[in-house]
Amino acid sequence: MSLWIPARRSARLNPSIIREILKLTEQPGVLSMAGGLPSAETFPVEVIREACNRVLSDTPREALQYAASEGFGPLRDWVAQHLAAQGLTLRADRVLITTGSQQGLDLVGKVMVDAGAPVAVEAPTYLGALQAFNPYEPIYASLAGDADGPLPDALRALPHDAPGTRFAYLVPNFQNPTGRLIPDARRAALVAAAQATRLPLVEDNPYGDLWFDAAPPAPLAARWPEGVLYLGSFSKVLAPGLRLGYLVAPPELYPKLLQAKQAADLHTPGFNQRVVYEVIKKGFLDQHVPTIRARYQRQCDAMAEALTRHMPADTTWQRPRGGMFFWLRLPAGCDALALLPQALAAGIAYVPGSAFYAQAADTRTLRLSFVTLSPDDIAEAVSLLGRVLREHLDAQREPAP
Amino acid sequence: MSLWIPARRSARLNPSIIREILKLTEQPGVLSMAGGLPSAETFPVEVIREACNRVLSDTPREALQYAASEGFGPLRDWVAQHLAAQGLTLRADRVLITTGSQQGLDLVGKVMVDAGAPVAVEAPTYLGALQAFNPYEPIYASLAGDADGPLPDALRALPHDAPGTRFAYLVPNFQNPTGRLIPDARRAALVAAAQATRLPLVEDNPYGDLWFDAAPPAPLAARWPEGVLYLGSFSKVLAPGLRLGYLVAPPELYPKLLQAKQAADLHTPGFNQRVVYEVIKKGFLDQHVPTIRARYQRQCDAMAEALTRHMPADTTWQRPRGGMFFWLRLPAGCDALALLPQALAAGIAYVPGSAFYAQAADTRTLRLSFVTLSPDDIAEAVSLLGRVLREHLDAQREPAP
Repeated sequence: MSLWIPARRSARLNPSIIREILKLTEQPGVLSMAGGLPSAETFPVEVIREACNRVLSDTPREALQYAASEGFGPLRDWVAQHLAAQGLTLRADRVLITTGSQQGLDLVGKVMVDAGAPVAVEAPTYLGALQAFNPYEPIYASLAGDADGPLPDALRALPHDAPGTRFAYLVPNFQNPTGRLIPDARRAALVAAAQATRLPLVEDNPYGDLWFDAAPPAPLAARWPEGVLYLGSFSKVLAPGLRLGYLVAPPELYPKLLQAKQAADLHTPGFNQRVVYEVIKKGFLDQHVPTIRARYQRQCDAMAEALTRHMPADTTWQRPRGGMFFWLRLPAGCDALALLPQALAAGIAYVPGSAFYAQAADTRTLRLSFVTLSPDDIAEAVSLLGRVLREHLDAQREPAP
Repeated sequence: MSLWIPARRSARLNPSIIREILKLTEQPGVLSMAGGLPSAETFPVEVIREACNRVLSDTPREALQYAASEGFGPLRDWVAQHLAAQGLTLRADRVLITTGSQQGLDLVGKVMVDAGAPVAVEAPTYLGALQAFNPYEPIYASLAGDADGPLPDALRALPHDAPGTRFAYLVPNFQNPTGRLIPDARRAALVAAAQATRLPLVEDNPYGDLWFDAAPPAPLAARWPEGVLYLGSFSKVLAPGLRLGYLVAPPELYPKLLQAKQAADLHTPGFNQRVVYEVIKKGFLDQHVPTIRARYQRQCDAMAEALTRHMPADTTWQRPRGGMFFWLRLPAGCDALALLPQALAAGIAYVPGSAFYAQAADTRTLRLSFVTLSPDDIAEAVSLLGRVLREHLDAQREPAP
């Protein structure tokens, strides 16, 4: 008998396929469109340095001491004001600062998910959310959707007998992996369906600030404050290595999330919270985020052009209006996971779409990030992807020897 | 019916009594011996500032980007070498960097504890460990002990039929709350008993570097590497606000802990890991930690002297040989929780011992921290505590009117 007896839930903890793929793509010379990382060129290093120095001059003991589990008060106030500008009016005492928004997902799982409880997710959905929820052993219900997002009827069809589906997890803005934005009318219809069936929603919004031509519609949480738990992040607008996110919880749920947060890591590093507050308190993001948008839009344009030029017939995609990702569906006979070794051999990398499905995967899908390569490298990488796909399709058409 | 249905485990998430008490003690003018915080006077602010600047000059993009869930390689190497100097030889690939050692406790609970599984703890034990394990719904077994720590027979008496007790959680060095050090012979006997019954141990060591006259005996993990999971922290030797800890796991357990870590917050802030590594890489702690020891020893001496002078007869305590805490047992007829309002009215604060018991509490116990007040204030605070206790005892002796 083994000495250490793992908990049953640990069977639901597994290596991330993305992580394994990213290791492969770290080989020199690979043009990788696989990573979900923001561009390091956007990190405001000097501004962060000044903020570090100011925090260590003004409040060194407070910044380096244990701190409140709720988070740094002025940062919580900032979050409340920032969200109010997007139509989500709330008191700062509903804001909980988290160690990245990934921790928010873990806390949601811990507080809301019993083993065997249904949780609804998009198909495909953010892999990190599945990883966060998995150890709490939910049963996933995959929501049918179209180009505008999940279908309201799919919410209505969920089990809603007591205790029913615990929540539906949605990423309305420039979703990872599909890049899809849920339009205003669909948001209204989804919230109406959720209200009618008393289905709580968990709204994850790491990418909402990265829009190109128009800001996204108001968040779901603005339409139904008591029924939507909202997650936000500084990873895509400042720097992910600071691990700073937040959640906004309905009052009835906040105390348990706070206690779960305290049990998980006592509090998010106070130094990081104060540094980020120092960076943003006078409106820095108002100048900074537009530079990220402009950069990503150029890269998105380059990828859109290259895809149009190089993809074989019957490959489909939707041009994103923000965020970091294109989502492709390959022609029949193409399995994105099976083709990955050929892609790597050709010097490029992507993430096969199957990683992002809670249940039955569409094996013809793949995710391309447009934010880590230059426009020239994007053109080159997409051209190589096109060659790999055409060679595969040609080989399929040849008669067997 | 409520809209949000909490998971069953959330019933085990509750407000921390210590947290509530600490709020009361924040009133101006209270001489608080309640906090478990290290002295902010020990934080090496200028060294941390230099490290921040160096990291942001040398590797800004790496420090601010997403990073590996295992932690920053050179920091993991440092931990391995640091522990080797204490007799715990290990490869750096067994080290997992955590967001404070509190996160290590949460990961242990997540990976090891099923609902209803027995977990053994000392009586009293670290409250934060109970908070971390509670949401995983263990059944606690409280270990009988004496002044040298838990009794080996108490380990032998635990349920060890398959799957049996998942682990025993021990804080061998200057335990929170008792300040107790487990001597070498007792460590050997405990490990022998654990090996004989194949009982895994979780060894938590946040205070081991804070010794006064002699370093503690070798850790339990050095005596049984495959059977002991070890937790360490930078909170007490550098600064807790950076939230940096680590765990050392047996190889069979490491992958699941790593996956749980990834699900919990992707990785500990890379910036903080690099800053701490920059601070410590050339031996800074070798000069710095002795200054903390000397400071805390003076405060400990002051409290020992004041206790001897001011405590009523039949109050007992053991003088700690390191760490941050005295543990008192009051005379019969004194309930530390019931007396707290009188103590606060007199201008002092402590933590009633009952908070630290998983099961039946000894209500005559309380914890005093000696590291936040100056020696003079300690003398004053302990004198006031003595007065509160004597007044209470005198009132008890008076005949009812």
